[in-house]
Amino acid sequence: MQGEELDTPSMGGVLDTEFDLTRGSKKELAAAVDAMLESCQESIVDGGAISFPSRSEVAELLEDLRNLIYPGFFGERDSDPGDFADYVRDKTLQVFNKLSVQVSLSVRHGCIESGELCNQCRKLGQAQATRFLQKIPALRKVLMGDVKAAFDRDPAARSLEEIVLSYPGVLAVTIYRLSHELWLQEVPFIPRMMTEYAHSITSIDIHPGATIGSNFFIDHGTGVVIGETTEIGDNVTLYQGVTLGGYGFRRAPDGSLERGYKRHPTIQDGVIIYAGATILGGDTVVGAGSVVGGSVWLTHSVPPKAVVMIKEPDLKYKVGY
Amino acid sequence: MQGEELDTPSMGGVLDTEFDLTRGSKKELAAAVDAMLESCQESIVDGGAISFPSRSEVAELLEDLRNLIYPGFFGERDSDPGDFADYVRDKTLQVFNKLSVQVSLSVRHGCIESGELCNQCRKLGQAQATRFLQKIPALRKVLMGDVKAAFDRDPAARSLEEIVLSYPGVLAVTIYRLSHELWLQEVPFIPRMMTEYAHSITSIDIHPGATIGSNFFIDHGTGVVIGETTEIGDNVTLYQGVTLGGYGFRRAPDGSLERGYKRHPTIQDGVIIYAGATILGGDTVVGAGSVVGGSVWLTHSVPPKAVVMIKEPDLKYKVGY
Amino acid sequence: MQGEELDTPSMGGVLDTEFDLTRGSKKELAAAVDAMLESCQESIVDGGAISFPSRSEVAELLEDLRNLIYPGFFGERDSDPGDFADYVRDKTLQVFNKLSVQVSLSVRHGCIESGELCNQCRKLGQAQATRFLQKIPALRKVLMGDVKAAFDRDPAARSLEEIVLSYPGVLAVTIYRLSHELWLQEVPFIPRMMTEYAHSITSIDIHPGATIGSNFFIDHGTGVVIGETTEIGDNVTLYQGVTLGGYGFRRAPDGSLERGYKRHPTIQDGVIIYAGATILGGDTVVGAGSVVGGSVWLTHSVPPKAVVMIKEPDLKYKVGY
Repeated sequence: MQGEELDTPSMGGVLDTEFDLTRGSKKELAAAVDAMLESCQESIVDGGAISFPSRSEVAELLEDLRNLIYPGFFGERDSDPGDFADYVRDKTLQVFNKLSVQVSLSVRHGCIESGELCNQCRKLGQAQATRFLQKIPALRKVLMGDVKAAFDRDPAARSLEEIVLSYPGVLAVTIYRLSHELWLQEVPFIPRMMTEYAHSITSIDIHPGATIGSNFFIDHGTGVVIGETTEIGDNVTLYQGVTLGGYGFRRAPDGSLERGYKRHPTIQDGVIIYAGATILGGDTVVGAGSVVGGSVWLTHSVPPKAVVMIKEPDLKYKVGY
Repeated sequence: MQGEELDTPSMGGVLDTEFDLTRGSKKELAAAVDAMLESCQESIVDGGAISFPSRSEVAELLEDLRNLIYPGFFGERDSDPGDFADYVRDKTLQVFNKLSVQVSLSVRHGCIESGELCNQCRKLGQAQATRFLQKIPALRKVLMGDVKAAFDRDPAARSLEEIVLSYPGVLAVTIYRLSHELWLQEVPFIPRMMTEYAHSITSIDIHPGATIGSNFFIDHGTGVVIGETTEIGDNVTLYQGVTLGGYGFRRAPDGSLERGYKRHPTIQDGVIIYAGATILGGDTVVGAGSVVGGSVWLTHSVPPKAVVMIKEPDLKYKVGY
Repeated sequence: MQGEELDTPSMGGVLDTEFDLTRGSKKELAAAVDAMLESCQESIVDGGAISFPSRSEVAELLEDLRNLIYPGFFGERDSDPGDFADYVRDKTLQVFNKLSVQVSLSVRHGCIESGELCNQCRKLGQAQATRFLQKIPALRKVLMGDVKAAFDRDPAARSLEEIVLSYPGVLAVTIYRLSHELWLQEVPFIPRMMTEYAHSITSIDIHPGATIGSNFFIDHGTGVVIGETTEIGDNVTLYQGVTLGGYGFRRAPDGSLERGYKRHPTIQDGVIIYAGATILGGDTVVGAGSVVGGSVWLTHSVPPKAVVMIKEPDLKYKVGY
């Protein structure tokens, strides 16, 4: 592009024309645009033009799914039973359409380079979306158990409705449970995009690959990290700042990271883990019914029905400064 | 719904028609929709069609309120004094309208089941909204004290304007102070929805029931948790990751949780609490003018004018690996 | 404003007219509006009508910049090479326009009080925007190094694409690197608004004034705080909850805070800092190649190639409750 081209109509439409650039400024800007154009020939990924699922579409899909899981709580609602049936039907088909397109984009067959999804990709997207929808009714039952667990375990909760409307832990777990099903279906990208969307609005970071049992409750939740290969039983409670993480890395002889092996702990049924506790390592098991106190740092296993607390650390006092 | 019905126009309008589903896929999808419909007959709450305040409306309301509290800082602005008066008047009436509708929805009288708000609910919403608006001028003065406190206590702050434009602590405290007034008016759901909105964009989790004095400053703020029955005096400063939380639960003889009693600490005037400190329990009082160091873990009271620090923990060193 | 004025058409347009306020309620509301009007005469800042950069415009600008830095990953994409060139050109000019307006607003010359930007402010905005655009191609190379560092250091990562699409650490560092260039150009307000936007969606709080070398990776990231005068070398890795913060304040003889001096630590090349570690103070240096373990609390320097871990704290166990 030459500086002169900035005067062409198409440029004028984009440039803010209320104030004129000097001739020198125009040349400088034109050179900057050229440099950008050259730079953008190089991409973070190989292979030229590419296509990916859209973050905003994935976020909208999650809104639609929440409307189906908790009807009446998010946005649209209708009191007429016939209208309600229409609403559920339409919403379900919207989810089907959006999800099948996003799955097709995530697969990224060669067809994408031609700018259009091929029939094979579209079929795969639709099959995955149908399979996913089939699981939602069962998921709804599990999520109702999570909501009730929140009410039973938080003395600040006034009602089940308050929990659905405002608890970030329930929101993060709802999105995790949806994403985990897509993870099991081996859909690329989208499961992680879903849990990172949840992370961005709740500060709770659950990897879609983690396995989590029923009646799960995270209170407050800011800073919680649950790694990819974590296994959590039924009736478990976590508070803010709990890390269930990896400990040390395995490397292949060539120095590259090993991936996929179990690196994160196992938390058995009925465990309670208080704020800021850190539990690390793929061999670490917290036995059923145990309680891990706030700020505990654990890299080894704990037997069932144990209570593990930090020894209250020595403090230095100075009074009457 | 039968598989054939997918061919009806209303379905076609929703279904992505660029690519045809096979006959088998259609049947499968139709069955999934039917299962969803059956599932959605069961709700997390009893009583059929229900209505709640809307998260997006509550978020918009908070945007409008910020425009009134800090005029010129968020979005609309106008330099003509007459236009400015019109702006404030219109914005105030918009807040009145939106808030009165949301309060009506939060009350959820029986009338909601008929699909329309009754006059009694509407009147209640309007009375609550007016009562709330009457408090804003006094709140504005308190909030200016909070902004000035941020400037006086953060060496990275360049100006009051920078603080209003970009400090998450000031944003979270602004929303908390608004929500607390609605909490005192006993409006259901909305106060907690407001502070959870703040939580989602600042990672600062303040329960609307907490009591907080003037000139309050939270720096950075990620991970701060302030529980429902916390009491905080004037001129208090908190850093990121501070928890003012509960410690142990009380249960009724039937095993259910007790709710509402004082479970969270009292922080007196002029206290500074550094990053990552955890202070727990309803009987814990941090005396006026005291300093609680980073990472301190406290479940007992501290006298006034005390400095409490962790004994620097022993570290294991290995040099020259 | 008098109560009667509520009946004027302009009010009717704003007021929800489906339900009539009683005469008494109207008076009360009118008085509340008047009080708000009086209150809004007083602003947090001196000088009457003012103008600032817009948070939503800054957020949109960052979206556009991400589209240029990682073309195809966020929203728009196009497979035709000619269309792609048009796309990059248009997007670059959009960024130029938006940024030059926001910079003009951030400068806030006296001209703003007249309600219009003067030519001097507009020229300054355009010059700053051009200067910024000139740096993007070099920044893109640095950011590709950051993305590759994430892949090399996280065993849960499946591909470079997954990292760009979903890793909050990469998002926060992308926005930090952009904001830091504007910080170096001494643009007011906007750099901090950018990093606080990143903070709000990632819970990672990096001050735009910090200096950070190449191949930088933050994993998970919730709760990370990197202060204004922090210096970080090349090939550094941080995990969630790491604080690189200040320690103690300097005050001028008049009691006011000193600002601007080095208050935050120096982290040399190749350092790894695990979750929840806190490193404080402007004289604290972590030597090249050192490893700081999880939850370590450091206010003094560490030599190169050292490993510093907490002594695993004593725990209190009770088994078989």
